Amino acid sequence: MKRNRNGEIWDFEHEIAVAGNRQVILGVDGGTTSTVCICMPILPFSNPLPDPLPVLARAVAGCSNHNSVGETAARETLEQVMADALSKSGFNRSAVQAVCLAVSGVNHPTDEQRILDWLRDIFPTHVKLYVQNDAVAALASGTMGKLHGCVLIAGTGTIAYGFTEDGREARAAGAGPILGDWGSGYGIAAQALAAVIRAHDGRGPQTLLTSSILHALGLCSPDELIGWTYADPSWARIAALVPVIVSCAEAGDEEANRILQYSVEELALSVKAVVQRLGLCGIDGNASFPLVMVGGVLEANKRWDIGKEVVNCISRDYPGALLIRPKVEPAVGAALSGWNFLMKETNREGCKE
Amino acid sequence: MKRNRNGEIWDFEHEIAVAGNRQVILGVDGGTTSTVCICMPILPFSNPLPDPLPVLARAVAGCSNHNSVGETAARETLEQVMADALSKSGFNRSAVQAVCLAVSGVNHPTDEQRILDWLRDIFPTHVKLYVQNDAVAALASGTMGKLHGCVLIAGTGTIAYGFTEDGREARAAGAGPILGDWGSGYGIAAQALAAVIRAHDGRGPQTLLTSSILHALGLCSPDELIGWTYADPSWARIAALVPVIVSCAEAGDEEANRILQYSVEELALSVKAVVQRLGLCGIDGNASFPLVMVGGVLEANKRWDIGKEVVNCISRDYPGALLIRPKVEPAVGAALSGWNFLMKETNREGCKE
Repeated sequence: MKRNRNGEIWDFEHEIAVAGNRQVILGVDGGTTSTVCICMPILPFSNPLPDPLPVLARAVAGCSNHNSVGETAARETLEQVMADALSKSGFNRSAVQAVCLAVSGVNHPTDEQRILDWLRDIFPTHVKLYVQNDAVAALASGTMGKLHGCVLIAGTGTIAYGFTEDGREARAAGAGPILGDWGSGYGIAAQALAAVIRAHDGRGPQTLLTSSILHALGLCSPDELIGWTYADPSWARIAALVPVIVSCAEAGDEEANRILQYSVEELALSVKAVVQRLGLCGIDGNASFPLVMVGGVLEANKRWDIGKEVVNCISRDYPGALLIRPKVEPAVGAALSGWNFLMKETNREGCKE
Repeated sequence: MKRNRNGEIWDFEHEIAVAGNRQVILGVDGGTTSTVCICMPILPFSNPLPDPLPVLARAVAGCSNHNSVGETAARETLEQVMADALSKSGFNRSAVQAVCLAVSGVNHPTDEQRILDWLRDIFPTHVKLYVQNDAVAALASGTMGKLHGCVLIAGTGTIAYGFTEDGREARAAGAGPILGDWGSGYGIAAQALAAVIRAHDGRGPQTLLTSSILHALGLCSPDELIGWTYADPSWARIAALVPVIVSCAEAGDEEANRILQYSVEELALSVKAVVQRLGLCGIDGNASFPLVMVGGVLEANKRWDIGKEVVNCISRDYPGALLIRPKVEPAVGAALSGWNFLMKETNREGCKE
């Protein structure tokens, strides 16, 4: 094991007896709101997997997106949450066989390499390390670890991410609101706020969104929206208006309907772009593939059901899309995908011998 | 004179002899980038005005938008720049007859009242105080102080602002990028960045914007745009890409042309909304009115001339729009409009007697 980077975080290990040859895997879902780490045993997994899954421990921490909190804080959060999960499960690092970190803000190979570099300082050389965008954990939470198919996440932000069975991957969107994620919760709400301003200053039609949004925010006039918006332009605060817009659309408001319809097309387009680039639909366009859908925008379960409309829109082009709503959380997905990677590597190494 | 709020700022006054009955006016253009104060004498203004105008002093300071730097810093900047201009012109506050503050971030009557309240603490009771959105200074810089017509500003941000001769006013846009100012320099550039991402992930057509923008920013791949954008999402930094997009449009790129064409429609729509609400075009739609245009996006003077296209688009609906490109700076416009207000009030008070 390499140098212990942070004495305090790993202090608990002195009190843990080395636990025979029992081996574990860590799965981390690192998001902008919170970070979750799951510790699971490496078992002779069956098909189907045991239900419930044998989760040894679960730990939670804050934001680990380096774009939001900076490199150092993100790293500390990730290290702490892994130590907590191990400590709770009664193991130390010598029991760890693989770590799968799925972290938001991993958009480029340099992001991945930077995280791999410091992970390598924490864990012994034989530990397998996998670093992914957090969308991968969401996909794996639907496919129980198998990286095949496409996941669409739409909450405050949105991203589509896909894998072929032979390991090629592709993504669409996930670049944030400045770079055009208009199908996201933030995108929907920002368009609705703009529609209120446009109705107010004569650039757009009158809309029920005006009274509904002002009422929801406790404001008197659309002029006050400018101050409200820039007082704290956090994406989540703005995205929280989505239910108001859905209610307006259900009440028949044309602007609200136009915005939601556009969001449906944008979200479906992200999935279609990934499916197309990876050829998940096969040559004839009819091959079946898992389509995992997660996030508040897709799970609203209202009369105006954005998720259902997105699926309909995708199915028209790709009838083989098999909708999956995950039953386990993304961190479990990360652990399961780590286990999948490990099995593949072990098999490959076995073949070479 | 009421209590001296900030001894240091006004210390220079002790060294200035009270200058007989000579009277001056202060005009301030308070923007997000910089703040300019002009001190002008109150003269028996002629028609046409003297050329050059008798500017006594000019002082410059930083940002005075309270949304950007906070209330206290904005106030201090405005007070300092006024003191500097007075000090340079060799007068003290007893010579001031009127102050016209045109400040960005004044979007609501409460913004105006807050600034009036603290201005009242700085100047004696008889001084006339006028607080306006900074767009008003830009309009007055084109009309030499007369608040009649419509101004369109399009730089990093955009706003349209108009006045009727009897003092009714209206604005459109000016609510920032989250609230849909898509015709602004920021709006144009953000759409171009989004087009690069969409081309890269398969959601949009390939575009010359990709190589041009990456080259301008010294980046290798569209993936790197995400990190670049969120490392410092300042509006001006993103808006600085507009010339790259104009070049791509001139080279025939369809996406760049689509974005610029949309910006033209959005900018023209802002003006049309103001003209319509104020009835500046008269009942038959053909009445003439001043249309003042300012800002980097409208002054580019390239082959693809956004400003010219906007004027063409407006003139199709309102042939009476008389284009004015201001020859003096907005702070002079603010001073001239302060003088106009003052003359009107004096005339009104004279009539009452």
